[in-house]
Amino acid sequence: MTLRINGKRLNETLQSTCTTWGALSNSTGMRRLALSQEDREVRDWLVAECKALGCEVKIDQMGNIFATRAGTSKTRKPIAMGSHLDTQPAGGRYDGILGVQAALEVLRTLNDHNIQTECSITLIDWTNEEGARFPGAMMCSGVWSTESATGLQACWDIKDLDGISMKQALEETGYLGPTPADYRENGLEAYFELHIEQGPILEASDMKVGVVTSVQGMKWFRVKVSGVEGHSGTTPMQGRSDALVTASRLITAVNDTARSTGLGVATVGVISNDTQSQATIPSGVEFIIDVRCSTDSMVEELSTAIFKKFEDIVASEANKTSYEVIRTWGLPESIFHKDCIEAVRSSAISEVGTSKIMEMKSGAGHDAAWTSKVVKSSMIFVPSKDGISHNPAEYTSPEDCSLGAQVLLGAVLRYDEGIKDGSIP
Amino acid sequence: MTLRINGKRLNETLQSTCTTWGALSNSTGMRRLALSQEDREVRDWLVAECKALGCEVKIDQMGNIFATRAGTSKTRKPIAMGSHLDTQPAGGRYDGILGVQAALEVLRTLNDHNIQTECSITLIDWTNEEGARFPGAMMCSGVWSTESATGLQACWDIKDLDGISMKQALEETGYLGPTPADYRENGLEAYFELHIEQGPILEASDMKVGVVTSVQGMKWFRVKVSGVEGHSGTTPMQGRSDALVTASRLITAVNDTARSTGLGVATVGVISNDTQSQATIPSGVEFIIDVRCSTDSMVEELSTAIFKKFEDIVASEANKTSYEVIRTWGLPESIFHKDCIEAVRSSAISEVGTSKIMEMKSGAGHDAAWTSKVVKSSMIFVPSKDGISHNPAEYTSPEDCSLGAQVLLGAVLRYDEGIKDGSIP
Repeated sequence: MTLRINGKRLNETLQSTCTTWGALSNSTGMRRLALSQEDREVRDWLVAECKALGCEVKIDQMGNIFATRAGTSKTRKPIAMGSHLDTQPAGGRYDGILGVQAALEVLRTLNDHNIQTECSITLIDWTNEEGARFPGAMMCSGVWSTESATGLQACWDIKDLDGISMKQALEETGYLGPTPADYRENGLEAYFELHIEQGPILEASDMKVGVVTSVQGMKWFRVKVSGVEGHSGTTPMQGRSDALVTASRLITAVNDTARSTGLGVATVGVISNDTQSQATIPSGVEFIIDVRCSTDSMVEELSTAIFKKFEDIVASEANKTSYEVIRTWGLPESIFHKDCIEAVRSSAISEVGTSKIMEMKSGAGHDAAWTSKVVKSSMIFVPSKDGISHNPAEYTSPEDCSLGAQVLLGAVLRYDEGIKDGSIP
Repeated sequence: MTLRINGKRLNETLQSTCTTWGALSNSTGMRRLALSQEDREVRDWLVAECKALGCEVKIDQMGNIFATRAGTSKTRKPIAMGSHLDTQPAGGRYDGILGVQAALEVLRTLNDHNIQTECSITLIDWTNEEGARFPGAMMCSGVWSTESATGLQACWDIKDLDGISMKQALEETGYLGPTPADYRENGLEAYFELHIEQGPILEASDMKVGVVTSVQGMKWFRVKVSGVEGHSGTTPMQGRSDALVTASRLITAVNDTARSTGLGVATVGVISNDTQSQATIPSGVEFIIDVRCSTDSMVEELSTAIFKKFEDIVASEANKTSYEVIRTWGLPESIFHKDCIEAVRSSAISEVGTSKIMEMKSGAGHDAAWTSKVVKSSMIFVPSKDGISHNPAEYTSPEDCSLGAQVLLGAVLRYDEGIKDGSIP
């Protein structure tokens, strides 16, 4: 008989912790920015829960939490399950949070039935996945993987809008841990991540579980447009060098180019204006472009097309301004490992049958994209109502949350069994 | 023999107080936001200087400072000179500041020579002229005139970006005074304002003094564009409702419409984005449009053309968003009074001759625009290097600053003489 997670307990825990730590008033939305007071408190709660289950808890140098339930093997590394507890400034209750709460429910279920696994089983809460407070999404799994261009010290130095550095925030919340944020010193056998789809595909095709095989490639560019300040009442239109007008043309071009090429998606989600005074012509405007495509080469192609358009706009404009790309980040496309994909597929089929599962690429970035660079990884998706995410209206039904946790449990046990019987090396 | 101001003292006082209170590092720029620590300290200094000259100092309910040197008449109200000591976030040392410092120099000169005037002579420092901290330019002269649509309580309630209200800032700096902010209870005979031109005309035509006859009409609109939040990686380009993309098209249209119609100038100096996260499609973007034309009817015509363009853009866009004008302010065109214009003209001619003065309209708004609605008013302009203002590079030579102060003194004395001899009623 298949071991069953407790869906009621999972959903009650998820809802009550969201209500307590970070709920927006008048909606089911969440604002739980990385290393904020709300994030610190829910992390403290998680650590206490895991310790109460008998787990050993390690905090690494980026604040990533590793809570480990011991297995019998002395030589094997842990099989991990995880995601993130932080949210967007006006996000929902499921993005990231479901993956961590489902991992906790798996640990509770293993305890309830005194299950002895071969490998240790580890729950992970990755810090600052959203990058909403400290710019740089999937920041801390990136550091742990050592594959991100932004390493430990550079991430420690990143500041939020109030000038507080990541390292300072880690120290102040008590999450600057001693464990190296490096997979070579704190390694895993495999990594599974349950997540909501954050898109409309599963719901639209009446599927219950997405067996995720890859994550699309992404690149971000921070662009600064420079003009010349001047008085809005006395500077003739002809002599102007208005950075916001040029930025507006460029942002329009980002959107138009993504639509016309059909290569992928491109979004400007952040804009800031140096002067920000109604009587002053803006001289410095910054914005961030987010480009995502199925493959890295398509990301390159779309980015190149966008910047070609930028050159044309700035060259042809009567409004004389200049622009520069002042910083870039990126996440290469990630192909998940067949051993993990197979464990998820087998677990999902046993729950809902072959007709209700589908193989998918992830449009969003996830911590699993970084882990997959250095340990076998894959993901499980469950449906998002109307495909909405990063929004208070984000919703996944209690039944789908439970189903996801059940598939996660099955995948972990199948993988553990594969190691025990030698079918997984 | 004409009474002479002390140009060396004027310029030394202006430069040293700028260096002490609000100087930007590494430039001659200024950041002295209304009721900031720097503004409070320079106001405290000004009050002390005026009291040392024997002036009576009154502070009104909006923090406007009135420092009065007594005249002989028991029935006449004071003749006033003034401007503002606050600056843009990255402004210069002359915009507003010169007008107050020149007024102080006039008071000092009158004292130095024991001049007895018929009317009392009042120096005024108007609070928050720039509107850079508390939105709404010329806010406090507007309240005093009782002609502004935004009255005392509404202005008290206006908040800065940190959520501090105008009233709270007045209280905390000690400038919430007991004198009614109302010209009917704290009246003036006339008002003269010396200001830098903030445009290129005087310099380009090799003129020394502008005899200002009017201020152009202005209107501001706060516009909010609403879309739907969504994940930047999983929301297809086709289904998007991106408020920043629409806002960008609208801001571009503001600029294009002002250029193509030639009716005046239109600027977007302020933009803000509700979500401000690189992985979230923006759902709420606000910006402020500043429209200025020679006449009120041209302001109406240009505004109407801009909003017509907005309708077309929003209706034709694949990107489904909506917009609303959530607030407007305005300053009607102001025609200055012949008695004041004549006093300025006569004083300027006696200093530089008729070939070096020109009649001008002001492109920028000034406190004199509000005072002119309720008391006889006019302004004096001196040249701005390269027409630059609201910028650290703003510059007016010490000679031109002194000349402006001298013309101001002459205008005030001529006006006072006119009252004495009955030529001014």
